[in-house]
Amino acid sequence: MGIVVQKYGGSSVADATGIKRVAQRIVNTKRAGHDVVVVVSAMGDTTDELRDLAEQVTPLPPPRELDMLLTAGERISMALLAMAIAQLGHKAQSFTGSQAGVITDSAHGRAKIIDITPGRIVNAIDAGSIAIVAGFQGVSQDTKDITTLGRGASDTTAVALAAALGAEVCEIYSDVDGVFTADPRIVPTARKLDRVSHEEMLEMAASGAKILHLRCVEYARRYGIPVHVRSSFSTKEGTWILADPTQGDPAMEQAIIAGVAHDRSEAKITVVGVPDKVGEAARIFEALASVEVNIDMVVQNISAAATGLTDISFTLPREDGNTAMSALARIHDEVGYDKLLYDDQIGKVSLIGAGMRSHPGITARFFAALASAGVNIEMISTSEIRISVIVDQAQVDAAVQATHTAFDLDADEVEAVVYGGTGR
Amino acid sequence: MGIVVQKYGGSSVADATGIKRVAQRIVNTKRAGHDVVVVVSAMGDTTDELRDLAEQVTPLPPPRELDMLLTAGERISMALLAMAIAQLGHKAQSFTGSQAGVITDSAHGRAKIIDITPGRIVNAIDAGSIAIVAGFQGVSQDTKDITTLGRGASDTTAVALAAALGAEVCEIYSDVDGVFTADPRIVPTARKLDRVSHEEMLEMAASGAKILHLRCVEYARRYGIPVHVRSSFSTKEGTWILADPTQGDPAMEQAIIAGVAHDRSEAKITVVGVPDKVGEAARIFEALASVEVNIDMVVQNISAAATGLTDISFTLPREDGNTAMSALARIHDEVGYDKLLYDDQIGKVSLIGAGMRSHPGITARFFAALASAGVNIEMISTSEIRISVIVDQAQVDAAVQATHTAFDLDADEVEAVVYGGTGR
Repeated sequence: MGIVVQKYGGSSVADATGIKRVAQRIVNTKRAGHDVVVVVSAMGDTTDELRDLAEQVTPLPPPRELDMLLTAGERISMALLAMAIAQLGHKAQSFTGSQAGVITDSAHGRAKIIDITPGRIVNAIDAGSIAIVAGFQGVSQDTKDITTLGRGASDTTAVALAAALGAEVCEIYSDVDGVFTADPRIVPTARKLDRVSHEEMLEMAASGAKILHLRCVEYARRYGIPVHVRSSFSTKEGTWILADPTQGDPAMEQAIIAGVAHDRSEAKITVVGVPDKVGEAARIFEALASVEVNIDMVVQNISAAATGLTDISFTLPREDGNTAMSALARIHDEVGYDKLLYDDQIGKVSLIGAGMRSHPGITARFFAALASAGVNIEMISTSEIRISVIVDQAQVDAAVQATHTAFDLDADEVEAVVYGGTGR
Repeated sequence: MGIVVQKYGGSSVADATGIKRVAQRIVNTKRAGHDVVVVVSAMGDTTDELRDLAEQVTPLPPPRELDMLLTAGERISMALLAMAIAQLGHKAQSFTGSQAGVITDSAHGRAKIIDITPGRIVNAIDAGSIAIVAGFQGVSQDTKDITTLGRGASDTTAVALAAALGAEVCEIYSDVDGVFTADPRIVPTARKLDRVSHEEMLEMAASGAKILHLRCVEYARRYGIPVHVRSSFSTKEGTWILADPTQGDPAMEQAIIAGVAHDRSEAKITVVGVPDKVGEAARIFEALASVEVNIDMVVQNISAAATGLTDISFTLPREDGNTAMSALARIHDEVGYDKLLYDDQIGKVSLIGAGMRSHPGITARFFAALASAGVNIEMISTSEIRISVIVDQAQVDAAVQATHTAFDLDADEVEAVVYGGTGR
């Protein structure tokens, strides 16, 4: 049997009891005949506690040193996990991101994986050991300094390692049973998906589903890694994320709709009264790019011929709101727009499904469901397999529920159970 | 000006306030024109807390993983210290033992430094940075695994780095003002020594003085590194440990006696009725060596001719007591001794001074002081510059006080102040 990469989040290893439970799971997989490589996050809230310590020392910690500090978190959890496995009678060795060959660029705090050279991991598993690898961290190719990959990036470490090792599966363990058709806190009858395609999962992650990190899914899709999202608190099958979810089961027809995602973390900015001339929109988005603001949806109203002016609206992460407004204020005279409107009381609701490609009428059904729930649509954006709308934040729950029901996604009974105490 | 290596113990960096105070000291040294390399221990009780965590997971943690775990402690303190220095407007970079080039053997938990290849440290200080190095840790030459050097070994890291960098001085900061003629908790009128020789400091450390780690002093003597032991809570001069304390000050005559040390951590074993034949003592000490028990003092009574039997007494660390007794029990039939006596209610009192070499009568004066204080001597051992006696543990304080007074070491007033809260 081949290599299995397992990733355990902070809530699964929050204390000694959790670490021992996870160790038992790992040993069970090893005893079933697999080579096991484990990626682990820092225990519980350790990373936040370390950030607090840094804040006590300085409001602006140098990024290199912040990375050095934060990587202590996985160092603790991985060593303890290796000890717990040894206690169960199996060989285990822990490896830092650097030791595991996770080579990154030098962008401290949000480094990108450039390459993985897992020579020491391969040696360890060849020698019969279980390899425990620190998630979230790597080493800069240029400076040899320790880097971190950004919040939630342990998932990415796991999938990237799975790709580098040619693993047969990457299992992502957390405190939920898998990927659901909607957030079970909003839709209690949401169903767990047994299978979903990489591209659908990518759209769901990009639309606010928090179960998997976006970069992790991108990696899985690019290298065709099967990902199994499941709970570390039960032995139930979770959700398989596959290149082709119907593969190996030709009788199965892929569902038209995978699920409904929502996102309350964005804000909307409208630039009112932009002269409708070539290059004006470009100037606005260049100004935003220069301060590294990521834009999500963009809508430009048709110019009212009488005035020669147009309105441009876009959404962005709410945390970038101030930066964006300042950048736009600075180009006011140059662009000559009328005024700026800022709205952080918005929410995004997205319908995702590969079946959209071949099934017309999905958009009409979606909008009808929203209308019957009394939800007004402020902005619309679509991809090949996704329709997203911006609505009033207070109406997000109603919009998600109505959409979920309209597409027959409701289960007969409540399925979702959340096991852990702390967040991921 | 040259390179100054400064080492700060856990009590000096116990919290954010301590870290900021230490950062200010470091920056002051840098502003005075020195290149500064700092060695730092883990914050306060971090190392003990990490050991507790390990114990919650397994009673017998694999040494490799325990080292991986414990090294998280300095990772946290060094990163925070670098941040605090940056906050004061100076460049600082932290380095793990491995990054600093601290190459060791593979004996996890008690690794020895084999070599120091401080290329990255040199580059950092050449670029104007202050280099912060994790104490207590290194990397194995053979396995490339992370190692620790044993409790209190950050002092050793500092002196070894000072030697490798050709530093002009290694400053060891703690929560006491320097090296005293006796433990101020026992002798309130103990005097701070301004200067002491490497060899005297070595004997004091080996005799129970806890201010400096034994291996650190050995390193300093071998490479002739001037060490300045001082408090991180005051700006007073501490104690200089030098190859020749009279150097540069020809008018100064070296003191005959440097101080009185004591040690309550040993136990005594007496093997009663050993056949007085060639090779019997060898068998006993081979049995102890095979279980890695370190012997300190050894006394063999003159054989009573009538019986052909002799008694052998020796002292050892109390924590090795059980191991030693078991090893001796196993060779009972082979050696044919009468019985074993175990006494852990002993204490060792040592008088140390390079002046002993040229001043006869020291031993007589020492023993007379003990006698007048009513202290009975159980064992005696001497070196060229040290006399040690084993006494009843309850009489250690009286023995130290009487000796201190007999050699005119008492100051006119109380000098010692202990600043910190936690231990080193």
